[in-house]
Amino acid sequence: MSQVRVHNLSISLDGFATGEGITLDASFGHAGERLHEWMFATRFWRSKVGQPGGSTGVDNAFAERIEPGVGAEIMGRGKFGPPEAGPWADVGSEREWRGWWGPNPPFHTPVFVLTHHPRPSIEMEGGTVFHFVDATPREALDVAREAAGDLDVRVGGGPTIVRDFLAADLIDVLHVVQVPILLGRGVRLWDGLEGIEERYDVEAVSTPSGVTHLTFARRS
Amino acid sequence: MSQVRVHNLSISLDGFATGEGITLDASFGHAGERLHEWMFATRFWRSKVGQPGGSTGVDNAFAERIEPGVGAEIMGRGKFGPPEAGPWADVGSEREWRGWWGPNPPFHTPVFVLTHHPRPSIEMEGGTVFHFVDATPREALDVAREAAGDLDVRVGGGPTIVRDFLAADLIDVLHVVQVPILLGRGVRLWDGLEGIEERYDVEAVSTPSGVTHLTFARRS
Repeated sequence: MSQVRVHNLSISLDGFATGEGITLDASFGHAGERLHEWMFATRFWRSKVGQPGGSTGVDNAFAERIEPGVGAEIMGRGKFGPPEAGPWADVGSEREWRGWWGPNPPFHTPVFVLTHHPRPSIEMEGGTVFHFVDATPREALDVAREAAGDLDVRVGGGPTIVRDFLAADLIDVLHVVQVPILLGRGVRLWDGLEGIEERYDVEAVSTPSGVTHLTFARRS
Repeated sequence: MSQVRVHNLSISLDGFATGEGITLDASFGHAGERLHEWMFATRFWRSKVGQPGGSTGVDNAFAERIEPGVGAEIMGRGKFGPPEAGPWADVGSEREWRGWWGPNPPFHTPVFVLTHHPRPSIEMEGGTVFHFVDATPREALDVAREAAGDLDVRVGGGPTIVRDFLAADLIDVLHVVQVPILLGRGVRLWDGLEGIEERYDVEAVSTPSGVTHLTFARRS
């Protein structure tokens, strides 16, 4: 059976996975890039953006696990963007929103965007196709699993979507990276998840960059 | 200059330092003892309670730092107990409350209990004297510093008191132990402390017991 996986979900010490005040120019709000600096320093990330070098230790080993074996992603509308709720204003217009990632997004698989406002699918370069579905977590997972075939499904965030999937007991592997900053406000990951550790084997490892990687692996 | 220190403050992954439903029989509410099992396994703790053995690794090294060099403690009324607010009902009665710790409490110094309802001091065996003061964090610290002489002042909790002292920028050393459980409810440590990491050098280390020790040392 394929697995449902979350990777590289970075949170502050006080549990916020994104800050307040998300705009087109600040996709994590007042958090800026601070939750992801650990990743930008890795060889995994630097090779993505065409830069040489980068760390090759524990942070890198965790970071690069996000890709192998994934056949589909599920994300929330907030991750797809733009930072607005309600019906899509841009469908069919010249300035149609096609995600934050440019013409060749880093997914290279079907991506299922959860939204109460379905719209036509968008095919991008490199194999990424954005589909827009109004569905429960379990319904969305059924669709994504079928698209993924024998491969795994990644739940890509944001934090609200991950929380919903955790609450519905649909996540097999959860990798959270705790960054030693206090954001004070934003969207929390852990709310309403009392006792989920009972369903998982949990490991923690701190690394020289100062972050702590937490892995939750569902007990079989 | 003596330092103001917090040690062995255990929190859940979702940031709760105590659970909900605190009673005389459950001083951490629904959290039970789960936040402190890491400490009960150490040689430091076992020697306190007259048991042999116990771990002598990183957890123990951190745990035993709570004692040396401390000349006074400040605690909240919630830590002193009993779990009731408002005027003390028991002063002078036969069943006068004298803390959770028996006739010889583990402090062995003056202890300043912050309360809006002052009452006469209580002298215990072993050097512990409970004083009850209606004061701001800074005022309480001035009094405790004078009592401590050249020694340090420990801020002993609970979480609300530690938070107040952090917000007032009165803590020099903060040691927090993050336990990989999700309590879901209770009293959070980190609320309202956005950006305090800028005042501290922060280190994290995970240990074989599964907890992660976070140390905040104020930048000089």
